[in-house]
Amino acid sequence: MESLSVALGSRAYPIHIGAGILGAAELYRPHLGGGGVAIVTNTVVAPLYLKTLKSALRASTEIVVPDGEQAKSWQGVEQVVDALLAARLGRDGLVIALGGGVVGDLAGFAAAIYQRGVPYVQVPTTLLAQVDSSVGGKTAINHVRGKNMVGAFHQPQAVISDVATLDTLSERELRSGIAEVIKHGLALDAAFVEWLEQHIEKIVARDRDALTHAVRRSCELKARIVAEDERESGARALLNFGHTFGHAIEAGAGYGAWLHGEAVAAGMVMAAELSALMGDLKKTEVNRVRHLLKRAGLPVAGPALAPERLMELMALDKKAAKGRTRFVVLEAMGRAALRDDVDDAAVRCAIVAAAQ
Amino acid sequence: MESLSVALGSRAYPIHIGAGILGAAELYRPHLGGGGVAIVTNTVVAPLYLKTLKSALRASTEIVVPDGEQAKSWQGVEQVVDALLAARLGRDGLVIALGGGVVGDLAGFAAAIYQRGVPYVQVPTTLLAQVDSSVGGKTAINHVRGKNMVGAFHQPQAVISDVATLDTLSERELRSGIAEVIKHGLALDAAFVEWLEQHIEKIVARDRDALTHAVRRSCELKARIVAEDERESGARALLNFGHTFGHAIEAGAGYGAWLHGEAVAAGMVMAAELSALMGDLKKTEVNRVRHLLKRAGLPVAGPALAPERLMELMALDKKAAKGRTRFVVLEAMGRAALRDDVDDAAVRCAIVAAAQ
Repeated sequence: MESLSVALGSRAYPIHIGAGILGAAELYRPHLGGGGVAIVTNTVVAPLYLKTLKSALRASTEIVVPDGEQAKSWQGVEQVVDALLAARLGRDGLVIALGGGVVGDLAGFAAAIYQRGVPYVQVPTTLLAQVDSSVGGKTAINHVRGKNMVGAFHQPQAVISDVATLDTLSERELRSGIAEVIKHGLALDAAFVEWLEQHIEKIVARDRDALTHAVRRSCELKARIVAEDERESGARALLNFGHTFGHAIEAGAGYGAWLHGEAVAAGMVMAAELSALMGDLKKTEVNRVRHLLKRAGLPVAGPALAPERLMELMALDKKAAKGRTRFVVLEAMGRAALRDDVDDAAVRCAIVAAAQ
Repeated sequence: MESLSVALGSRAYPIHIGAGILGAAELYRPHLGGGGVAIVTNTVVAPLYLKTLKSALRASTEIVVPDGEQAKSWQGVEQVVDALLAARLGRDGLVIALGGGVVGDLAGFAAAIYQRGVPYVQVPTTLLAQVDSSVGGKTAINHVRGKNMVGAFHQPQAVISDVATLDTLSERELRSGIAEVIKHGLALDAAFVEWLEQHIEKIVARDRDALTHAVRRSCELKARIVAEDERESGARALLNFGHTFGHAIEAGAGYGAWLHGEAVAAGMVMAAELSALMGDLKKTEVNRVRHLLKRAGLPVAGPALAPERLMELMALDKKAAKGRTRFVVLEAMGRAALRDDVDDAAVRCAIVAAAQ
C-alpha cells in the first residue's frame, strides 16, 4: 500500500492506494466518530464490495442508489438524506461513498449538506474516481440545465483506493479512467507522460503495480494543485485540460453516449491542436498526445457534429466567464496554461484539425 | 448608520445597521461582481421593499417564493436554483436575500450550493433575522423529520439591517425578535440585560435609536462568538440558550402555532429554572428573566403539554449528541455554559417550575 497526503491544513487528509485494501479496518478506524456509519453505494457495486467493506466496520447503515448518472439528482440526494435521518446518523457520524464518481459526488454532496456537514470517506471503485473525482472535495448533482450545477466543496476525511476493484470494471470504463491519468501527465508532468508511454499496455492489462503507480502519481499531481487552489480560483482550472471541448462532446453526443473519459480524450486532442495553433506546442507533440491516447484505446476524434454546434455548447458551459470561454492549452508537454484570449476562428480550426 | 465587522479572516464581513439604509447603493456596490444580481424575497416582503432595493442596483433578477416556513424545503431551494440558472447567474454573481429568517436561510442555502457556492448579501427585514439568523452563515432548509436538517455554513458578504423595515412587522413578530435580543444579553452580557431592563418599552414601541442599539449589541455579541467558533464545535452552542426547550415547544405545539421567539422565551424560563436547580443561578435572577420577558409581551410558560412529552421531543432534537441532550444553563446573569450532565429529573422539575 502507498499513501500520500492532500496538504490542506486543518482539512488535510490521506489517500491510500493498494490492492486488496478495501476491507482493511485500520484504514477506517481513525475516522469513526460516535454517531454511526452509513455506506452509500449503488446497485452494481453493492453485490461486489459491500460485504467486504461492512466486515471492516462494526455496524453500518446501507444506502443503495440506482446505477448511473441519473442518481446525481435532487431525487438522489433526497433519498440519501432521508436514509441518513431515518438511521439517525449524528453530526459525529461518518458517510462512506463506495463506488464510482457518481456515488462519490452524490454521497459527498449529501454529507456536505446533511446537518450542515458531516465527515465522509471516499472508497472509489473505478479508475476515473480513483485518479480524479474522489480527490479534491468537489461534490455535486446535475440539473436539467447542466451537469454539476448544484454542489459543494467538501473535503473527505480520507480516500481509500483499492486497485483490485478495477478488475470488475468494463474495458470501456477502464479506458475512460486512463484518459484522466493521461490528462494529469499532459497538463502537469512531462516525465509522467514518458512513464505512461512506456507502461500504457500494462495499465490497459490491469497490471496492479502499474495501476498503483498510475493512481498514485495522478493523485499526487492533483493533490498539489488542490492544495494550492482548493476552490478553483486559479491553478485548479488547469485540471480541466481537454474538458471544455470534452463537456461539449458529451452534451452534443447526448449524455451517456460518450463516457466522460472518452469525451475528454477527444477533447484533449482538440485542445492540443489549439495549443499548436496558438504557437505554443509543436505539431510533433500533438501527435504524441494522439498516439498515446490511441494506444490506450481511446477516441482521438469527436462525434460527427458541426464545429459550430460544439462551439455553441462550449459557450453554454458554466466555465464561460463574462461571456468569454476560457481554454486550457499546453505551453509544452506537461505544462498547461489558462488562456482567455482565444478567438473563435482558432477554436474552429482546432476542431477541424483534430478530426483529420 | 452603525457598522461592525464579523472577524472571520478572509471571510470577514460588515454588518450595517440604521434606519432607511435599504436603498443605499454604496452599501451593495463593493459586493457586485460581473455575473449578475438575483434578489430572493417572498410574496409579503416584495410589495413592501423590493422596489427600493432594486433602485439601488443596476439590474437584477427577482425570485419571489411563497410566504412562510414551508418555503424552507427541497421544493423551495429547487425553485431558487432553477431561477438562478434561468437567469444565468455566474459564479461571480451575487444573491441578495431580502426578507426574514426563512428567506435568509433559503436564499443563503441556495447560494451555498449553486455552482458550488456564490456570494450573497443578507438584507433582513424582521427583528429576528436582524439580530440572529442573518449573522453567522448558518443556512438551511427543513425536512419532515426536523427543522434545519439540511444546510450549509456559508458566510454572507455583508448584512444590511434597515430598522425602518421593522415598522411593517406585526406586534407578535416584533416581540418574537425581542426574545433573541434578550437571549443575547442573558447568555453573554449582564450589562446589556440591564440596558434592556431600562429600554424594553422603547424597543416594543419601535423607537429607532433603541432598536438600532439593540440590533447592534446583539450582532456584536453574536459576531464575537461566531468568530471564535464558526462551525459550532464549542462556544457557538451557548447561543442556543433556551433553544433546546424552545425547539421542543415549537414541535409539541405544532409548527407555526408558536413563533420561534415565543417558544424560545418560554424555553429560556425553563432553562433559567434548570440553572437554579443546578445551583448556578439565584432564584431572584430567574424572576428577573421572567419579568423582563413579560414586559416584552412574551410568554413565560410553555404550552399545555406533559413534561414527559417535551422531554421526548428534546431527545429527538438534533443537538442530542451520543444519546445525551446537552443543555445551555446560566452560571450567572450574562454567563452561559454548556452542560451535558443534566439528569432527567432536573429537567422535569425545571419544566414544572417554569409553569408555576
